[in-house]
Amino acid sequence: MEFASKLLENAVYEISQLPGIGKKTALRLALHLLRQPTIQTNNLSTALLKLRGEIQYCKNCHNISDSDMCEICSSSRRDHSIVCVVEDIRDVMAIENTSQFNGIYHVLGGIISPMDGIGPQNLTIESLIKKAQDGEIKEIIFALSSTMEGDTTNFYIYRQIQNFDISTSTIARGISIGDELQYADEITLGRSIINRIPYEKTLKK
Amino acid sequence: MEFASKLLENAVYEISQLPGIGKKTALRLALHLLRQPTIQTNNLSTALLKLRGEIQYCKNCHNISDSDMCEICSSSRRDHSIVCVVEDIRDVMAIENTSQFNGIYHVLGGIISPMDGIGPQNLTIESLIKKAQDGEIKEIIFALSSTMEGDTTNFYIYRQIQNFDISTSTIARGISIGDELQYADEITLGRSIINRIPYEKTLKK
Repeated sequence: MEFASKLLENAVYEISQLPGIGKKTALRLALHLLRQPTIQTNNLSTALLKLRGEIQYCKNCHNISDSDMCEICSSSRRDHSIVCVVEDIRDVMAIENTSQFNGIYHVLGGIISPMDGIGPQNLTIESLIKKAQDGEIKEIIFALSSTMEGDTTNFYIYRQIQNFDISTSTIARGISIGDELQYADEITLGRSIINRIPYEKTLKK
Repeated sequence: MEFASKLLENAVYEISQLPGIGKKTALRLALHLLRQPTIQTNNLSTALLKLRGEIQYCKNCHNISDSDMCEICSSSRRDHSIVCVVEDIRDVMAIENTSQFNGIYHVLGGIISPMDGIGPQNLTIESLIKKAQDGEIKEIIFALSSTMEGDTTNFYIYRQIQNFDISTSTIARGISIGDELQYADEITLGRSIINRIPYEKTLKK
């Protein structure tokens, strides 16, 4: 693309560095900002700079936080002996939205994926093992995505903590509530039959 | 959505102000920036601030420019008596990419659209009329989108310049090259029959 302005070209280039945003979308966004009051661009730039420059991570669970200990980890109403292991902050937000979990989290910051060059040393696994060693944890719930990489990560962590007195579980996989059986994929349907639960248990809910 | 951090919440809010970007995408982009080196966020913010703060518009054609006269308008190799009227800078880029036009442009900055509260006074129509009055223009080519708003804008400008000695034309509408007739919409196909051109003319190309 030929741009009439170096400033525009540069802005389009920087915007298109974001994932999922191509040159055409970047140009559309840049032209949109030009049509809006200057304050909008200033606010956006400041918000990004502040986010990148001032963000902190909870020293306990590695979740994004405005201080060195996140709200969940510093809450006395949460059960600190149950730890839910998740990939990133979005999973924390998703689980928090269900209001079904009262423990704390451990954010790995990714999953083991040799294809992407991510090994255990790139994740926060070590600090999880340390917490387990210190006897702070009674139960670990694995809530990683059910992919090859997720399963590998689960197993890697499991092997290191299996000798401690910690119960482990993974979140249940099955047919989504409201979904029709005929449209479910075979693996999920197969697993949901293998991992069937006693009917009485569902009545107690 | 519940955010663990005010900084993150603020950044997501500002990103989601951009058109076509919702809260989920904004969160994905914000988390992406957090995983990248700080320099990328700095570059993006600086590029946006510079774009919004330092951009200029060509005083002749109102195109985006780094100086007060754009490259096209300051070129002596272009025919300054033929003016192509377009909606915004993206149309200039599209036409420039064809290398088929050697005149100059006039960027309206939008089209007349009462629904969006855009009237003739919000566009750069006045300066186009002035150029026409001054006798600088021999031909005006309307290259606006063929919508109700585009047609209205064409007609509004046409009525104001019809008494000057200026020939006017609109870009040809028809079946795209390579397109199959059966998939063309009726209006385009109908117009392409009404505006058929002598076969000999196509041979000269």
